[in-house]
Amino acid sequence: MKKIKVSIIGATGYSGKELIKILLNHPKVELIHLISASYVGKNITDIFPDFLNQLDKELIGLDLHKITQESDLVFTALPHTVSMKIVPDLLKKEGMRVIDLSADFRLMDSVTYTDWYQKKHDKKSKILLKNAVYGLPELYGKKIKSASLVANPGCYSTSAILGIAPLLTNQVVNPEGIIVDAKSGTSGAGRKLSLGLHFAECNESFKAYKCLRHNHIPEIEQELSLLYYGQIQNKQKKTVKISFTPHLLPINRGILSTCYLDLKDGYGDEEILDIYKEFYQNAPFVRIFSPPELPEIRFVTKTNYCDIGFAIDERMGKIKVISVIDNLSKGASGQAVQNMNIMFGFRENSGLI
Amino acid sequence: MKKIKVSIIGATGYSGKELIKILLNHPKVELIHLISASYVGKNITDIFPDFLNQLDKELIGLDLHKITQESDLVFTALPHTVSMKIVPDLLKKEGMRVIDLSADFRLMDSVTYTDWYQKKHDKKSKILLKNAVYGLPELYGKKIKSASLVANPGCYSTSAILGIAPLLTNQVVNPEGIIVDAKSGTSGAGRKLSLGLHFAECNESFKAYKCLRHNHIPEIEQELSLLYYGQIQNKQKKTVKISFTPHLLPINRGILSTCYLDLKDGYGDEEILDIYKEFYQNAPFVRIFSPPELPEIRFVTKTNYCDIGFAIDERMGKIKVISVIDNLSKGASGQAVQNMNIMFGFRENSGLI
Amino acid sequence: MKKIKVSIIGATGYSGKELIKILLNHPKVELIHLISASYVGKNITDIFPDFLNQLDKELIGLDLHKITQESDLVFTALPHTVSMKIVPDLLKKEGMRVIDLSADFRLMDSVTYTDWYQKKHDKKSKILLKNAVYGLPELYGKKIKSASLVANPGCYSTSAILGIAPLLTNQVVNPEGIIVDAKSGTSGAGRKLSLGLHFAECNESFKAYKCLRHNHIPEIEQELSLLYYGQIQNKQKKTVKISFTPHLLPINRGILSTCYLDLKDGYGDEEILDIYKEFYQNAPFVRIFSPPELPEIRFVTKTNYCDIGFAIDERMGKIKVISVIDNLSKGASGQAVQNMNIMFGFRENSGLI
Amino acid sequence: MKKIKVSIIGATGYSGKELIKILLNHPKVELIHLISASYVGKNITDIFPDFLNQLDKELIGLDLHKITQESDLVFTALPHTVSMKIVPDLLKKEGMRVIDLSADFRLMDSVTYTDWYQKKHDKKSKILLKNAVYGLPELYGKKIKSASLVANPGCYSTSAILGIAPLLTNQVVNPEGIIVDAKSGTSGAGRKLSLGLHFAECNESFKAYKCLRHNHIPEIEQELSLLYYGQIQNKQKKTVKISFTPHLLPINRGILSTCYLDLKDGYGDEEILDIYKEFYQNAPFVRIFSPPELPEIRFVTKTNYCDIGFAIDERMGKIKVISVIDNLSKGASGQAVQNMNIMFGFRENSGLI
Repeated sequence: MKKIKVSIIGATGYSGKELIKILLNHPKVELIHLISASYVGKNITDIFPDFLNQLDKELIGLDLHKITQESDLVFTALPHTVSMKIVPDLLKKEGMRVIDLSADFRLMDSVTYTDWYQKKHDKKSKILLKNAVYGLPELYGKKIKSASLVANPGCYSTSAILGIAPLLTNQVVNPEGIIVDAKSGTSGAGRKLSLGLHFAECNESFKAYKCLRHNHIPEIEQELSLLYYGQIQNKQKKTVKISFTPHLLPINRGILSTCYLDLKDGYGDEEILDIYKEFYQNAPFVRIFSPPELPEIRFVTKTNYCDIGFAIDERMGKIKVISVIDNLSKGASGQAVQNMNIMFGFRENSGLI
Repeated sequence: MKKIKVSIIGATGYSGKELIKILLNHPKVELIHLISASYVGKNITDIFPDFLNQLDKELIGLDLHKITQESDLVFTALPHTVSMKIVPDLLKKEGMRVIDLSADFRLMDSVTYTDWYQKKHDKKSKILLKNAVYGLPELYGKKIKSASLVANPGCYSTSAILGIAPLLTNQVVNPEGIIVDAKSGTSGAGRKLSLGLHFAECNESFKAYKCLRHNHIPEIEQELSLLYYGQIQNKQKKTVKISFTPHLLPINRGILSTCYLDLKDGYGDEEILDIYKEFYQNAPFVRIFSPPELPEIRFVTKTNYCDIGFAIDERMGKIKVISVIDNLSKGASGQAVQNMNIMFGFRENSGLI
Repeated sequence: MKKIKVSIIGATGYSGKELIKILLNHPKVELIHLISASYVGKNITDIFPDFLNQLDKELIGLDLHKITQESDLVFTALPHTVSMKIVPDLLKKEGMRVIDLSADFRLMDSVTYTDWYQKKHDKKSKILLKNAVYGLPELYGKKIKSASLVANPGCYSTSAILGIAPLLTNQVVNPEGIIVDAKSGTSGAGRKLSLGLHFAECNESFKAYKCLRHNHIPEIEQELSLLYYGQIQNKQKKTVKISFTPHLLPINRGILSTCYLDLKDGYGDEEILDIYKEFYQNAPFVRIFSPPELPEIRFVTKTNYCDIGFAIDERMGKIKVISVIDNLSKGASGQAVQNMNIMFGFRENSGLI
Repeated sequence: MKKIKVSIIGATGYSGKELIKILLNHPKVELIHLISASYVGKNITDIFPDFLNQLDKELIGLDLHKITQESDLVFTALPHTVSMKIVPDLLKKEGMRVIDLSADFRLMDSVTYTDWYQKKHDKKSKILLKNAVYGLPELYGKKIKSASLVANPGCYSTSAILGIAPLLTNQVVNPEGIIVDAKSGTSGAGRKLSLGLHFAECNESFKAYKCLRHNHIPEIEQELSLLYYGQIQNKQKKTVKISFTPHLLPINRGILSTCYLDLKDGYGDEEILDIYKEFYQNAPFVRIFSPPELPEIRFVTKTNYCDIGFAIDERMGKIKVISVIDNLSKGASGQAVQNMNIMFGFRENSGLI
């Protein structure tokens, strides 16, 4: 059984670490290079003693030639606007495949990207937008299989889109006035120094942040519009929009999104349950809870599951959808490995639980 | 300076403990009796060693005669449906005043109470519903001053009503489709044994609960209807309704409510800020944050403040209101003391910070 | 590749749950019966929704005949004094093997057991004490291989014994005056209802408990005595004794033990490091940290590792040893599976990491 | 009633913030200047919104002339080695009094300071060492009353010294081989940026740190030597030494020290309890627990109490002392205010609880 050769650019962030952890136990993967701008020359166990006795590998700098020559697949776990400078060069090698965990290739429309990220794609990276596949396997499994570049979704986006997709696809809800009230653990903010992420500043507290302009909004709206209108915007230039409020939970890992939508008349618990179960019948990582049971973050911690429950608020004519994931796993690295499995024809849950 | 004599029935729950803590430092209060069904004969420091060197008092049983004879004011910190059996007898004594922390006297309409609490008021307690004043000082300060029975509001209710009141009163939002997504620390559930409240069951997790039928809903809707329609229901029997979802935060104390309302056209940050500041100009415990600043739970922990911020989501035509309190203080015992201060003509923030 | 048939008695405690989680991913194990006194007839996913899509099995009552007939191995994850009533009957079947996670078969001397646990072994269980093997693979690998009954060690015991063993075995420390200051997460206390384990009672706090008479003391002293004196007590009836103080950490999982011993003259960091590395050269789950590096609980969370570091306090003539494990894994169920792997000739780390 | 005028240099660290919080409610204090190198020109509520509606004051730079002229007392809440450059100039003004929260004036011997802090006192600051009084009111109340410069003790030091003092003073324990195993919340590390203090790096974990050379060691040893030998070192140059291991707890505030000492023969629970109670009979902030009761961190959180309990381990001939404080209150700012109260003849617990 031949293994594929895999490298990780950005190996010392939380997503990079999680990728290593998963791939170490993946039966079909050989980890080739770990690249880190900040820690060249150090052993990965100097940064993460968790890997003692499991992995003995020196972190190297960004030698693009070496990396592309020696890898079948590269994961880029870099900040947005950094990825777009590197990915085009990686893909120059024929047959190379890239799974990018940044936001740089998630939006089909480069103008929208610039609007939300205050940065323009250059020519080389802009071309790639057309080929990049949005890496949500439950929606795009077939495209992912043959993609050379997969744009791995954002953590909040995964949770919100999977929670809402069956309702919009089946047109049982109003596409207007959708609210997504989301809560995430602190690892979602990455490993950059920040006073606001200090233990004594967020423990025993809770807050909303980026209340109006969180970067995951355009990505969620793009995908919801595609599901409802079949295109990014319909003939009347209408799109699905959401009011999105992210909050910071005093936990390490996990996202819970509470979504509120106006439910059309005539749908009860059973009909909705059927819709969800059918929509996700072939999705090994989505679990549907029957009312009145609801998922909790701890059910999915350190797994690749997305657990979804719902409650119909008849007094208000609304449906509430609760969707939980582990932000570092299904919200980032676990999903990236799921994408890898699909791309290379492995079992979809290989190396994952 | 004469002190008033105060007793607490239900002294060993979290609200009771918090009442003791506050009253110990109140310059105008003498603690007379601490009543606890479960711990008669024990010293309060056996239950709460926190009070060592501060309070040396034996817990007594429910001797109604003794309590009423020797107290000017009684706080009842009991489970709902228990309070209604005791309060009428307390109030038999002329001049006696009671602040009840349960839900039993919060709803003006006994039918609504029965609908949500599955319990009927008997004759004596039903009569009291007419005289009971809803103890939210920012709305009912004058009535509280002369009340003999104050029904202290629920924790979620305080946070939601204070957050939304200025908008409804000034009719700048649509009274329909209001969403309150609320998050509370675990002390909100009280001190009764429950596996779900064990550390290892809620730490590093987060969940929604009582998603459709939380008891605080009718209380919030009653007050919001009064603010908007001037009565519990308007001539067309319309009331203000909310879609309410409580969640359990892995922290000890604190509530943050994220409220979503449809904002009428023509209102910007400045107009809304003015509305809030004017509404709360005489409220010493409400602090308004100017956009884009937003309150966090830690700002109010162990204080009696309610901090309120907002953000106008122009893309969606909505206003988001963030309202935070400490559930044991402004959400229960701090507010009860604030009510006491008003009732007895003390400085409104006496003993509170 | 034939799988062994495994049943778990006591499947709904924390150790039982962790056993299921590990065994689900074990390539050589088929889970046959899950036994739970409290939840007969329920599906395991009703109790632990974590197992949705992974395991669909009804909990059954204690049908000893059925269990022994259909299982090659039984894990008993029961409270102490309960196990001793069941294990003898399980072992009546020829070839049956049992790994007991309680304390009932850990102490070679039944008098000591009675002294610490206030309970006597009956005749049948007392006989088993002679055959039972203390299930610490790093010390007793060979005996475990052929054992029919393995007494899986306590969580604190595993951490303390593994931390100290190399020093006593090599006689480089004084066997007197040993101090073990240990700290454990709350899951160590199990899933029984207890106010002291409520989130709001132990979060943001820390305390010592069972300061003089914790049940793991005799077990640690037995093993340390065997290592130093070669027997439970030497000719002068001397034993190795420890001063042991357990503390409750506000975390879900993990133990850190800080051990203080008087170091004999002439030993520096290098000599001690060599002693540890040699002692554990064949132990896949023990990782030794070189000074000044020290292990942290998070390095071992949800793994079967025991990480050990040390610091020589020359000013005091003492060596401090820091030993960390996950109390539910290496401190209970992970170690039990490690024992199973040895007993059945599987790879020692099969199913574990 | 005339108030004293107080300024705080270093107002935006955790100790500075806690000082402000306490002094805001102190009946005899007027806050004059808040000095902060990093935030000159900002309002204190920009940094700490907690103070909204309570304090409206601009942070100013270090204008020594202005500060000394306008203040009766200055608190210096600065990093060590920074304080020593400023305090001598403050004290030039006649009648000025300073309470320094750094370590710069705690050690009587400047050589020891240099040994542990890698920094020398200059001439002006070295002279002050003779006049500085170690600000532990339970030991030095009288000296503090008349001191112009009080060196406020370290947090770990306060906890350890108060826990051990009665035993050494009464010579009921061996002064050799003392072990202090201490655990602190993360606010003890201050507000400087540090990856190790990020929530996701210390939550759900626990570790020892600075295992051999923590700065509080010489301070504790100085005081314990004074208590036992009556001087820093006895004629044989003997001093009391401790083996000290600090650990990082995943909580915001609080220290628990577990101290192990060899108890001389003939002392039981009653004798030891008497010794403690007598030693602290006039200390309003020390509470002694009778065996088998033991203090927990939560009993003292946000109070100025030091709670002490003990257990005699007869099997080992040792006494274990458990001492808990809030590191920001009794371990820093609360104690500083207690010192202020003594210096200015206020009630010792004025403004404190």
